[in-house]
Amino acid sequence: MTTLAISGLIRPLLEPRLPDDLDVRWFLTKEEALDVVPDAEIGWFDMNDQEAMAETLHAATSLKWLNSIYAGLDFLPMDVLIERGITVTNGAGINAITIAEYVVMGMLNIAKGYRQVVRAQDRREWLTDSPGKRELAGSKALLLGYGAIGKLIKPRLESFDVDVTVVRRSGGEGVLTPDEWRGELGDFDWIILAVPATRETDGMIGADELSQMKSDAVIVNIARGAVIDQPALVSALEKKQIGGAFLDVTTPEPLPEDHPLWSLDNAHITMHLSGRAQDKMFIRSAERFLDNLERYRRGEAVSPIFDPARGY
Amino acid sequence: MTTLAISGLIRPLLEPRLPDDLDVRWFLTKEEALDVVPDAEIGWFDMNDQEAMAETLHAATSLKWLNSIYAGLDFLPMDVLIERGITVTNGAGINAITIAEYVVMGMLNIAKGYRQVVRAQDRREWLTDSPGKRELAGSKALLLGYGAIGKLIKPRLESFDVDVTVVRRSGGEGVLTPDEWRGELGDFDWIILAVPATRETDGMIGADELSQMKSDAVIVNIARGAVIDQPALVSALEKKQIGGAFLDVTTPEPLPEDHPLWSLDNAHITMHLSGRAQDKMFIRSAERFLDNLERYRRGEAVSPIFDPARGY
Repeated sequence: MTTLAISGLIRPLLEPRLPDDLDVRWFLTKEEALDVVPDAEIGWFDMNDQEAMAETLHAATSLKWLNSIYAGLDFLPMDVLIERGITVTNGAGINAITIAEYVVMGMLNIAKGYRQVVRAQDRREWLTDSPGKRELAGSKALLLGYGAIGKLIKPRLESFDVDVTVVRRSGGEGVLTPDEWRGELGDFDWIILAVPATRETDGMIGADELSQMKSDAVIVNIARGAVIDQPALVSALEKKQIGGAFLDVTTPEPLPEDHPLWSLDNAHITMHLSGRAQDKMFIRSAERFLDNLERYRRGEAVSPIFDPARGY
Repeated sequence: MTTLAISGLIRPLLEPRLPDDLDVRWFLTKEEALDVVPDAEIGWFDMNDQEAMAETLHAATSLKWLNSIYAGLDFLPMDVLIERGITVTNGAGINAITIAEYVVMGMLNIAKGYRQVVRAQDRREWLTDSPGKRELAGSKALLLGYGAIGKLIKPRLESFDVDVTVVRRSGGEGVLTPDEWRGELGDFDWIILAVPATRETDGMIGADELSQMKSDAVIVNIARGAVIDQPALVSALEKKQIGGAFLDVTTPEPLPEDHPLWSLDNAHITMHLSGRAQDKMFIRSAERFLDNLERYRRGEAVSPIFDPARGY
């Protein structure tokens, strides 16, 4: 009988729907996890404590397939996953819908100056003109990162008649390659960062890139704070070298109370909430796991695969 | 030679592009207008003073075609337009793009609780969970009014996987007729009012309609304040009988400083700014007039036609 070790966090959604012919061991604490995992072939170790998850993985010496609700698993020991040849499925795309919605929301808010409308209502002041006068229609967006989130952002923006250019290795119509986009930065009204956190994307937007953007260009970051050289961004925003930044992610998180980003007129801080602005994450993750479980037992491929060698 | 009487407000955009073989008379004040309009066959009388526009129309005894940048022309004497058989083209659709964008912005803001994120940034507070957890994806919207604005709202919402039902006389797939929609109100997450201001739409949403909506339904009004029975709405919002209201229009405008709508947690007041959140209105209006002028001179139909008998 196949043994599974699964975190109790997901139990209410999974237990009623799991096949009978499985040996399922639930755990709540790290101690319970360390006790049950050595026999497990399949594991879902998500706990609130990332170090406990890493330790549990070390102890799971029979593991063949590890699943997680998280998309970014950089806190796990990649070498263990690689050496033991463990198949890893992650939560890539579980939050993609709400994050894509959040991106469009942020762009519309900046276009219409909506933050000032909110503040005016709080003051009971009837504004006589719109603080923002931009339309998405007819504007141009550069979309860096074309994974689960990027693929949802593109059609949404296109429905607003935004001209979306994607960056992809393969190139093609309406596509720039990783070697080309820097040279075209001055063409875009919106620069959207939806790339995975890797060595390549670390500091991808720095002072050089910022200086090439249009003076009213807006940068939207729903990737990782480290994708942007943040001191360079603060300086560009202070000098109004670019139009603004919509930052779901920052370095560090939480942002310290005295950080200059909080009070810059053209910085919109959303506290890594984009993925949390939904209530279907656990449901979707459970659905996906049950689908994958059937496939796994039939000897078919599971997805989406997290590659510990690439880090995403 | 055809005589035109045109408000100086639009002169900078029109003058360089008008054909030479026209007798164009520009005016700035009501007095200048009254002086030049009696001979005019074509008129564009937009001034900031609506009474002056009505008086100018009375004096324009040779007028065959009246153009305006405004969509709603209810302040003009309809009887004069009807009796003299004047063709009227209005600004319907000139602002449609930005208003459609505003509607989606409002829905996303409410879905994600974004107003509270703005206030948190103002307090330099890093929120740990999203104040709003709704997704547009999978939700259902009832769209009342399928004119220039409604036609732009629908595809934008559909790109977010919103299931949009339109109300139209003609009926059809995914359509409710004016007799049917009230019975189905309880089905929708979003009720969007994009109807023209007419006797039929006045008070269209009252206590009965509000009581049939879902407890988390959100009403979006970008039509006219009078389309909603506002005291009934305030009461429904106070009792949290519905989820919220995104009100670009109110009764009256501006809303008095002591009005309860200002401070209701679930009322979002946008001060009739949706149409102003763009900077292309005059450019689009001039383009449209020049197109129509060519058609008019060839004896072809101009558009869009405002029908003084219907009032839109």
